[in-house]
Amino acid sequence: MARTATASPTVRAPKSANHLEQLTRLVNQTLERLLPRSAVSPQVVHEAMRYCVLSGGKRFRPLLALGACEAVGAPARQALPVGCALELIHTYSLVHDDLPAMDDDDLRRGQPTCHKKFDEATAILAGDALLTKAFEVLALPRTHSDPAVRCELVWELAVASGGHGMVGGQMVDLWAEDHELDLNGITRLQQLKTGKLIDFSCQAGAVLGKAPRALRQCLRNYAHDLGLAFQIADDLLDVEGTVEEVGKAVQKDADAGKATFVSILGVERARTQAHMLADQAIKHLDPFEEKADLLRAVARYVVERRS
Amino acid sequence: MARTATASPTVRAPKSANHLEQLTRLVNQTLERLLPRSAVSPQVVHEAMRYCVLSGGKRFRPLLALGACEAVGAPARQALPVGCALELIHTYSLVHDDLPAMDDDDLRRGQPTCHKKFDEATAILAGDALLTKAFEVLALPRTHSDPAVRCELVWELAVASGGHGMVGGQMVDLWAEDHELDLNGITRLQQLKTGKLIDFSCQAGAVLGKAPRALRQCLRNYAHDLGLAFQIADDLLDVEGTVEEVGKAVQKDADAGKATFVSILGVERARTQAHMLADQAIKHLDPFEEKADLLRAVARYVVERRS
Repeated sequence: MARTATASPTVRAPKSANHLEQLTRLVNQTLERLLPRSAVSPQVVHEAMRYCVLSGGKRFRPLLALGACEAVGAPARQALPVGCALELIHTYSLVHDDLPAMDDDDLRRGQPTCHKKFDEATAILAGDALLTKAFEVLALPRTHSDPAVRCELVWELAVASGGHGMVGGQMVDLWAEDHELDLNGITRLQQLKTGKLIDFSCQAGAVLGKAPRALRQCLRNYAHDLGLAFQIADDLLDVEGTVEEVGKAVQKDADAGKATFVSILGVERARTQAHMLADQAIKHLDPFEEKADLLRAVARYVVERRS
Repeated sequence: MARTATASPTVRAPKSANHLEQLTRLVNQTLERLLPRSAVSPQVVHEAMRYCVLSGGKRFRPLLALGACEAVGAPARQALPVGCALELIHTYSLVHDDLPAMDDDDLRRGQPTCHKKFDEATAILAGDALLTKAFEVLALPRTHSDPAVRCELVWELAVASGGHGMVGGQMVDLWAEDHELDLNGITRLQQLKTGKLIDFSCQAGAVLGKAPRALRQCLRNYAHDLGLAFQIADDLLDVEGTVEEVGKAVQKDADAGKATFVSILGVERARTQAHMLADQAIKHLDPFEEKADLLRAVARYVVERRS
């Protein structure tokens, strides 16, 4: 991740690349500490939780929270617990989406999916426990000294990830298996399935830093464009990536005859669109000046990544 | 429910029977209002959420929260949002437990289980959305004006229902399908699977009413004994009830050769034990005097119910 960020001409402060790497390490260390020990009874559910969360992952959402926090003038590491809560929610959604009754995937982050490594019941329960753990983490005093801030985070995360957000998006995605979506339909699906959580990732930083309304709106615009860029890049990886690079099955959408940004726009237009959206996202960060370098690096990474 | 409560000699204030019925209605009305409309997109997940929550149910946990709130001197209805959050968590756990990969049940509250009425993917997602919705409800300002109280509720509910609580208990329950548990093992399983949420139901009332430590401990003792009584009564219904009365499959544990309180103690000793525990639970309520009549009525109902 660091190499890509360094290569990007839009990362003005060279410290950002190291910063990004350093923060990813911090996220991983915090996740490691927050998750229950495998040796604690009932062992299997905790072992499965650790397996799913600690088996890699780009920590994209935590980095957004950390970046947004830094952009509004609070120390990035202040957003570590929220970043971890985001990663727990994201991971639970992957575990449940991978189940045979949903996307039926065998591989995730280059390893057997949770239900393959353990079994379906364990995967359902580990997902439930990860989702629950996210709210436990947000409610803890160490997340922020002001309980009103913690409550706002709990409420916003619940709205972003529930039936009107991420879960609703997954429902539309399943529905889309038997219904043809046009570009508007796919955009709406993306906004629910991945967009709402990406938006919350940025808003969380703003909430922690008690940012004024105008700056929150800038972050909202950044998240909007970046979310779309992220999804298009994901669709491109499904078409162009290899299993080894991506760490999960590829060509899934094409094989299922599912409409995606790439199937509608074609590879070249989709790639151009993704880069244009990332540039546009970065443009929304102007008011933050150099304080948003971390968010700029994340935006570049999103469209340049190979996994 | 009202009839049973009226018949109980331990309900000293006759208003409690009506009170209990009235509060159950209030819980149902509040749940109805809190759940997303079926017409809102994506419809299916919201329709499934409403189907599962509004298809009946004894509202045992909400009544405990309302009763505990009243016992510590706060108006019972102040605990309505928390009671509803508890019911959302309880319902999600039933939806996921009923899945083919877990208990594989076709009938719940006298109706087809969620995955039978809809499909497995919808049941998984509706469960996820209900679980998420519970935390959304707790974080809302209308739950309590003090955000520190709301944060405490979020944290305690997450701990009670996660990997160290209810979800952990379900994991042990699955493990117990291939392992013989003794009385201690079954008690430990019950304390995780149902006990922790019953404990939180009572503590929630105490948190809302900002009850002193000594009274919280009385409620904790009440919840401990009542939780055990509840589980024994449930095991008795599995042996003695009919599908029509109970609204779900019966004889499941016996058919699966699973150890339960009844298989170990026998029907008569189990019944005596359940009543003894309910009496003991009621005894812990003495310091609250007549303010705990609602909790007394709930305790009686738990061991006298036929469904």
